[in-house]
Amino acid sequence: MDDHFHDECGVFGIFGAEESANLAYLGLHSLQHRGQESSGIVSSDGQQLFAHRAMGLVQDGFGPAVMDRLVGDRAIGHVRYSTAGAKADLKNAQPIAVDYAQGALAVAHNGNLTNFDHLRASLESEGSIFQTTSDTELLVHLIARSRQEELADRVVESLRAVQGAYSIVFLTPTQLIAVRDPYGLRPLCLGMLKDAQVVASEPVAFHLIGAEYLRDVEPGEMIVIDRAGLRSLRPFEPQPRKMCIFEYVYFARPDSTLSGVSVYEARKRMGRVLAEEQPADVDLVIPVPDSGVASAMGFARALGAPFELGLIRSHYVGRTFIEPAQSIRHFGVRLKLSPVRGLL
Amino acid sequence: MDDHFHDECGVFGIFGAEESANLAYLGLHSLQHRGQESSGIVSSDGQQLFAHRAMGLVQDGFGPAVMDRLVGDRAIGHVRYSTAGAKADLKNAQPIAVDYAQGALAVAHNGNLTNFDHLRASLESEGSIFQTTSDTELLVHLIARSRQEELADRVVESLRAVQGAYSIVFLTPTQLIAVRDPYGLRPLCLGMLKDAQVVASEPVAFHLIGAEYLRDVEPGEMIVIDRAGLRSLRPFEPQPRKMCIFEYVYFARPDSTLSGVSVYEARKRMGRVLAEEQPADVDLVIPVPDSGVASAMGFARALGAPFELGLIRSHYVGRTFIEPAQSIRHFGVRLKLSPVRGLL
Amino acid sequence: MDDHFHDECGVFGIFGAEESANLAYLGLHSLQHRGQESSGIVSSDGQQLFAHRAMGLVQDGFGPAVMDRLVGDRAIGHVRYSTAGAKADLKNAQPIAVDYAQGALAVAHNGNLTNFDHLRASLESEGSIFQTTSDTELLVHLIARSRQEELADRVVESLRAVQGAYSIVFLTPTQLIAVRDPYGLRPLCLGMLKDAQVVASEPVAFHLIGAEYLRDVEPGEMIVIDRAGLRSLRPFEPQPRKMCIFEYVYFARPDSTLSGVSVYEARKRMGRVLAEEQPADVDLVIPVPDSGVASAMGFARALGAPFELGLIRSHYVGRTFIEPAQSIRHFGVRLKLSPVRGLL
Amino acid sequence: MDDHFHDECGVFGIFGAEESANLAYLGLHSLQHRGQESSGIVSSDGQQLFAHRAMGLVQDGFGPAVMDRLVGDRAIGHVRYSTAGAKADLKNAQPIAVDYAQGALAVAHNGNLTNFDHLRASLESEGSIFQTTSDTELLVHLIARSRQEELADRVVESLRAVQGAYSIVFLTPTQLIAVRDPYGLRPLCLGMLKDAQVVASEPVAFHLIGAEYLRDVEPGEMIVIDRAGLRSLRPFEPQPRKMCIFEYVYFARPDSTLSGVSVYEARKRMGRVLAEEQPADVDLVIPVPDSGVASAMGFARALGAPFELGLIRSHYVGRTFIEPAQSIRHFGVRLKLSPVRGLL
Repeated sequence: MDDHFHDECGVFGIFGAEESANLAYLGLHSLQHRGQESSGIVSSDGQQLFAHRAMGLVQDGFGPAVMDRLVGDRAIGHVRYSTAGAKADLKNAQPIAVDYAQGALAVAHNGNLTNFDHLRASLESEGSIFQTTSDTELLVHLIARSRQEELADRVVESLRAVQGAYSIVFLTPTQLIAVRDPYGLRPLCLGMLKDAQVVASEPVAFHLIGAEYLRDVEPGEMIVIDRAGLRSLRPFEPQPRKMCIFEYVYFARPDSTLSGVSVYEARKRMGRVLAEEQPADVDLVIPVPDSGVASAMGFARALGAPFELGLIRSHYVGRTFIEPAQSIRHFGVRLKLSPVRGLL
Repeated sequence: MDDHFHDECGVFGIFGAEESANLAYLGLHSLQHRGQESSGIVSSDGQQLFAHRAMGLVQDGFGPAVMDRLVGDRAIGHVRYSTAGAKADLKNAQPIAVDYAQGALAVAHNGNLTNFDHLRASLESEGSIFQTTSDTELLVHLIARSRQEELADRVVESLRAVQGAYSIVFLTPTQLIAVRDPYGLRPLCLGMLKDAQVVASEPVAFHLIGAEYLRDVEPGEMIVIDRAGLRSLRPFEPQPRKMCIFEYVYFARPDSTLSGVSVYEARKRMGRVLAEEQPADVDLVIPVPDSGVASAMGFARALGAPFELGLIRSHYVGRTFIEPAQSIRHFGVRLKLSPVRGLL
Repeated sequence: MDDHFHDECGVFGIFGAEESANLAYLGLHSLQHRGQESSGIVSSDGQQLFAHRAMGLVQDGFGPAVMDRLVGDRAIGHVRYSTAGAKADLKNAQPIAVDYAQGALAVAHNGNLTNFDHLRASLESEGSIFQTTSDTELLVHLIARSRQEELADRVVESLRAVQGAYSIVFLTPTQLIAVRDPYGLRPLCLGMLKDAQVVASEPVAFHLIGAEYLRDVEPGEMIVIDRAGLRSLRPFEPQPRKMCIFEYVYFARPDSTLSGVSVYEARKRMGRVLAEEQPADVDLVIPVPDSGVASAMGFARALGAPFELGLIRSHYVGRTFIEPAQSIRHFGVRLKLSPVRGLL
Repeated sequence: MDDHFHDECGVFGIFGAEESANLAYLGLHSLQHRGQESSGIVSSDGQQLFAHRAMGLVQDGFGPAVMDRLVGDRAIGHVRYSTAGAKADLKNAQPIAVDYAQGALAVAHNGNLTNFDHLRASLESEGSIFQTTSDTELLVHLIARSRQEELADRVVESLRAVQGAYSIVFLTPTQLIAVRDPYGLRPLCLGMLKDAQVVASEPVAFHLIGAEYLRDVEPGEMIVIDRAGLRSLRPFEPQPRKMCIFEYVYFARPDSTLSGVSVYEARKRMGRVLAEEQPADVDLVIPVPDSGVASAMGFARALGAPFELGLIRSHYVGRTFIEPAQSIRHFGVRLKLSPVRGLL
């Protein structure tokens, strides 16, 4: 139950494109930095849902045979963060896909619900069963129990009950719904590829598939896409904006623009501000790659200090690794980072 | 939703044995003829449940690393029948393991519930969500919604609502419950291995692990096993016995004894009865292996006709197979059976 | 070096058929009882050789992507026996494919060469290197060192240097050569599929692909097949026939006919002879399946004793198996064979 | 035969360390940027060689079960470059391990032999067979045919016959030999880990295992390591130094020091020299990561132009990838590199 506190994942959705699952695959690949534990895609042809989820990177879990099954012109996808402590288990992979009274529904969620334990206990006391430890399953229970007729209304009613951060995409055979929490804690963007609508955690996902970035989904906004087109709803009370600072510092790719601010420029500016607030007397500025590079550049430039890439990051650090029995000092760091001798 | 009509699976349970998951593994191996699509084991150390499910044979899906995780002295297991039509999907593998208001619960089920659609629609109308198409998930919903305090009472209340065939084992951290439907449509047997209690679909599962066969679980009987020992309950109305004839004809292994009747002897007797009812004038009796061998022997012996093993079955017919593009007549049969020339 | 004493493998060759690799795949499947450790196919389009070898059953190691690469109208294949002691290693899989002065050559071999150690030491002393422990590699060295111009003459010269049992198929881009040792210790048969020539260790390989059995390759006979047709050569001194009795007793499938004698009938006859030579007073004859069934039938019939299939063989005994830590008596036998209670 | 022109691989050797295979594994991991197609390790306990080779990254191909087999205190390893054109095939993986008249021998080679075709044809004309298309197999043939008594002398005699670039490590049960070609075209370094001797293509391999860098193996130097210690031999004519410039530009890691020159500094200097030779009037310098970063920094600094990391490289570009059917412009580049909007 502990892994619903980790809230860095990636979501993607597309409606109205041939090869929607293929494009979701590429979109997830672009969002892979947001999660490497598991990947999943659910597509639809307007009649039913087709799902596949797998442990590991999207390129490892989705071969040609799998892709052939994921037919239809609409799809959502998810990459899940690899949390060291929590149990890596396929059953926690997303999107979750269920049948309930209104038919089939798939959900992919980036965020975490702070009143999860309370809501889950309450649902269990009314007879609900839980097959995963993710708060996404809780959302589905709330939607299934809602008495509203329209899916959009069910989603609104359910989300009014939860607290916390979320950027979520829902898919039924006929609708794709994307919604961002009222504080805007997690990013969510809207794009267009020919006639198709696209949503994704970061605009880098648009770049690879050749889609155009339109705008961020606003905090508290709900986008409903179906054959009739796209509707934007504002069902929640406005809240003060609280975009998570770690998106800029760590989670997002430097080539993404979130809330109109380039992550790369934001990082450089943080370095500059740091230099102004803490004007140190330094000989040399060396960043810890990758996320620290841009801020270190800003820091060095503001101080007029030389900047060198004195730590090299391995491209080949994977998840399974044979460690030597005999101790090697700072093995984990050595595995990932290596110094450029002479500089250090 | 169509695959809940296929009701040939194998179940196993053991309580009070070191290496319970290992013994479940061997028990499932012995029941592998009852299902090759997927295998699963859930064990417990008295505190929590440990689960693993995999597609394919038990020996393919459970390596040493998996077995190391399945700790504790109690376990249940399941092998699922490979149905040609239904979609082979890991999410339909059993045992199902869920959390609900009373804690953790795992279920393995052999049978089919004839009022499944009705019950499912009713549960969905009250807000239940379904992640699989199996009737086992429905059972768990019923148990979770029961207002009884004890698991045994919840199980009874739930099973009173269902119609159809079932031999089921339940596992919580503290209890193992085995129950057979009032008609006795599916087999279920009770055995003992030192101090441990064992249940299995067929007694062949006892042989491999060195357990002693005690008796069949009676139609309508519920066995509750915990630290306090074994209790036998009779919570259902007695019904006329209706052991499924296909267990003797096809499903069960010839070396099993069901309801006190040897499957091998039953098959021979069927052949003898056939010879008496249809006294044909035959030159030679050749069985279709494997299930037809014993009855053909009985048939030949009753007629005084020579018996020859004129068809040889391949040991190596698996599930994935490259078929030649050019047509070969009766390819599927040729792949499985081959004639002994000279006899045919 | 110890595994060249195990000489039960299966070989297959086909020349002049579309989808030759596919047909080799099916032929090897039919010969799978002769070897489960590894499988291999080499095909040719007349220009070059295309090879794939894999551990395990042919159906496990050859998927659609592999088969697509194995183009051409001629192919040879091999299944290798799983020897408990010798190291299972892909490098010992066959056919071996090499380049030498005359071009590309592939070899698949069933048998063992009794002067292997002597020949190998002699070749090594002249600078040869060995990458495997199989005597097949030795054959290739001999062929490469031969000063004859034609492949057939090189093969003859090489085989004159070796002693022991062999049924071998060679493939170059332009020729398929099949040869059987002068004693006829290992089986080899000739068949026809439309215009294509087929050779295989046992005629059961012809059945599945719809080929017609023509005759056995004679002891000491060499068959050379190319675009010009089929030539039969007799390059070796005639020797007394010494067909290995274990082919009838154990190796071959009962539905095969070797040297004009049905394996099934041979086994029954062995049982009959045993009954005549050792007229025991028995209550019941129970065979050890599978290879003992036919002889036990012959034995029981000659004695007038009842015959029962009192031991059931598991269809699911594979190669990797989790054994329980706690000892189970006669575990290996229990895993494979299970008694029909009441009979034993 | 075409892939012996690709000469960027990584080699590693260690003698006298517990867990030698484990340390080789880590060394190869550090050299993974030099080759991702296949990995291999051969170890020895002084009596025999133990080998494993696998396609892909070292962390993918070497699990705990494999490592357990690779016992002994000496080992060599190899990572092979993934060449787009040449056929990726396990049989071309290194180290090659063979038996010949003097016993067991394993070889791992970085380089290419320019007179390969000539030597191979000559060896084939004398009866040699080739199972791979690598020039490493040719080296082994030459060594096996040498009439010298000592391995070191055999190696020298063989290498005198070849032309081209090579850094090679040899392992027998009793000796490790490392040799670098007289021009020094490929790098090779010597280090020490407690009492163990270590050689590797680049010093980054020493860093991870905590070994100390001692010096480069000199061009034309042969290092012979056994229980008696380390000997340095100079068996070849001195030649003008010709370290391959691509090692600095592209192959080596920036944190390596080759021939006493830091790769990182060498790259920066190249940028500076470029700026001096081609003093362009630029607004902004943006490198193509990763190998272009340091030289772009040197270029920008020399010009006084701003430097920005305007192209972000994906960490998740693997080898198998589902491409969309509909065309996406410059898909390959988009997959690997993505621009920081606003800068470009």
